[in-house]
This record gives sequence, C-alpha cells and structure tokens, in this order.
Amino acid sequence: MKLYDFELAPNPRRVRMFLAEKGITLPMVQVNLRHGEQFGEDFKRDNPAMLVPALVLDDGSLLTETMAICRYFEALQPQPPLFGTTPREQADVEMWSRRAELEGFLAVAEALRNSVERFKDRALPGPRNYAQIPALVERGKSRARAFLDDLEARLATHACVTGDAFTVADITAFVTVEFAGWVDVKPAAHHTALQRWHAAIAARPSAKA
Amino acid sequence: MKLYDFELAPNPRRVRMFLAEKGITLPMVQVNLRHGEQFGEDFKRDNPAMLVPALVLDDGSLLTETMAICRYFEALQPQPPLFGTTPREQADVEMWSRRAELEGFLAVAEALRNSVERFKDRALPGPRNYAQIPALVERGKSRARAFLDDLEARLATHACVTGDAFTVADITAFVTVEFAGWVDVKPAAHHTALQRWHAAIAARPSAKA
Repeated sequence: MKLYDFELAPNPRRVRMFLAEKGITLPMVQVNLRHGEQFGEDFKRDNPAMLVPALVLDDGSLLTETMAICRYFEALQPQPPLFGTTPREQADVEMWSRRAELEGFLAVAEALRNSVERFKDRALPGPRNYAQIPALVERGKSRARAFLDDLEARLATHACVTGDAFTVADITAFVTVEFAGWVDVKPAAHHTALQRWHAAIAARPSAKA
Repeated sequence: MKLYDFELAPNPRRVRMFLAEKGITLPMVQVNLRHGEQFGEDFKRDNPAMLVPALVLDDGSLLTETMAICRYFEALQPQPPLFGTTPREQADVEMWSRRAELEGFLAVAEALRNSVERFKDRALPGPRNYAQIPALVERGKSRARAFLDDLEARLATHACVTGDAFTVADITAFVTVEFAGWVDVKPAAHHTALQRWHAAIAARPSAKA
C-alpha cells in the first residue's frame, strides 16, 4: 500500500490528519502538483485520474477521493471512531462533512482555480482540461464567507462540528477554513466560536501532519 | 419522523429508491419546488436550509443531505447492505458515489440551473441566492458527457458500479443518468454496457419509487 500525497495541497492534508488521529503510518510518495508531476507518465500509469491523494492498494488497484480513503482506514481500524458510532452520529458526520465540502471546500477551490495563472485551463482537477470562468471567483469567495457564517452559528452551540466528539467533519471544516485563507477569506472578529474551535484543532498533533 | 420529498426532483428520488430497496416506509410531505413551496414560512421553520430531501427526526431536529439520510437508514437497518460490507467495498461505494455526484450529478445540475428561467438568481440550492453564470451550461454538459464515458468504461468490466453487488452508488449513478436527460445529455449508441446496466436498474421495483 502507498499513498500519493502532496504536502501543500488541502485534500492530501485531510488524509494525513485523519491517519495521524488514527495513529496509522504508511509509505507516502510526494507528487509535486505545482511542478506538474501529476501529468507525468509514471504517475498516470498508476493513477489515470491524475488525482492526489490516491491510495494504491496491495493488489495494484487505486482508491481515489479523500473521503473514500478515510472510510477505508476507518473500516480497517475503527478506533478512535472518526465517522460517528450511533446512527444519528454517523448521519450528522456525513451531513456536516458534505456541507463543509460542497459549500465550503469546493467554493474555495472554485475561487482559487478560476483566478490563478497556474490553473489556466485546469479550472477543475482530473484528467480533462476546463477553461477558467472568471465569474466563479467572486461567487466562490462569497460562498466561502457564507460557509464561515454557517460554521460560526453551528459552533456557537457545539464544541465540535457534529457535537462533543472530534470527527472527520472537523478535519474537513478545519482544512477548509485554512484553505479559504488562500483566497483571502478569513474568519471575522465576530466569528468567536469558530476561532475557539480552530485554535483547539490547530493545537492537536494531527494538525502538523 | 417525516421526510420532505418532491416527486419530480432527482435528489429526493435517490432517497426514495434507497428506502424502497430497504423496504422502509415513512411519512412523506410533498414540497412542490416548482411552485416555490420551499420558500414558504412553514417549511422554513422546520428546514432553514430550504432543501429537499430533508428528514425531520422525532426530536424535531433536521437531517439534510441525501447521503446523510441514506446513511442514517443504513445504520438503523443494515440489511440489505447498500454501502458495502468489507473495508474495500465500503471505500469503493464511497469513491463511486462521490464520482457520480461530483462529476456527474453536480455537472448536470450546473447545466440545468444556469440555463433555465425558473432558476434565475437560484443557480445554487439553499437559503442564499446566486445569479446564473451562462458559461457553466456548456461546461456542465461537457462534464456530464465525460461522466457517461467514464461510467461506460467502468460498467464494461463490472455488473454494477462498484462490482457485482447493487449499492447506493448505482442509485446515484442511475438517477444521474436520468437527470442528464433533462439537459439533453443521453447515453450514446456505443455506451452499450451503460445501457445494459441502466435497463437492469430500471427494471427494479425501486426505480418506480
């Protein structure tokens, strides 16, 4: 088993934090996305989706998608549980993970990839090229700001995103908040609950993974 | 417990198919999205996210997000398993569910919501308004066609999306293929594996749910 990783990219960071919380280590192969290493022939042979993170299993098959990789390790090693345990907790983790991704993470990615020169014709990740759409930059930032507001409202009454327990939804939301800084969307002074939560997660050893 | 549903919309259909496969029935409340019933004060009180499907639990709390609702019922009633059983199966279901959603379903939604008059200023679902971006129409269709090609490649070697067993990934991919028809993206004559798979799922009783 080996994990294709890139230290500077937010999705691989989610996987590294998840593994650190589980205490799992595995061989990592760095793919420098800023140098275009995902387009190299060697990498494409292993990983036709040209995505990072990507987990190559011992039979040579490929697992892509951050959350699929995390779920694989959750199933292999359930402790500590990061996807909830009761039906309600599991559902809440799924709901908040998705909200953090669809409303937060993807909005930030949209603002970034449609504005930065190095993503010209690469406005979406994956094997196909798509041109940048300038109108998505401001919309992405606006959506990211709305997500921070929603996260603040949630964290005003909950210690962690889904309740008292730290879960993978906190990892996704935390990495999203950090990622939002790349497009100059930052927690505001009145986001006090969000800042308390952010500081608590930043202090976990996994935040350095 | 009650489920807010709208018979004509694709996400609620995914939940209805899932429940039908499980043999679960529960009270449904129709919210006619085409008549703007999601903006009504009664609905917003229960469901500030203004989304359908939405599950109101017995304690009055709200579960949104199609996949969170499905996972809730999977946890409550594991048989028949629709999210995989082994770690590898669970990971594959997650990977393919996400690919079907992010690369397929969201692309179709993008093409539809940015082109149709009734979604003017409602280019994204939820409580906030966003203007249409015309450039997303063609990009959405192009991505949806690419998804059909990828699905064909996968189904050429697998009976169902994740292998031999029917899972929630098939539900999402099936509803996505039907939804793509709304923006005139349809399986091509050479998508023979996809058409074989589509016909098999269309013949399941749950496809009528």
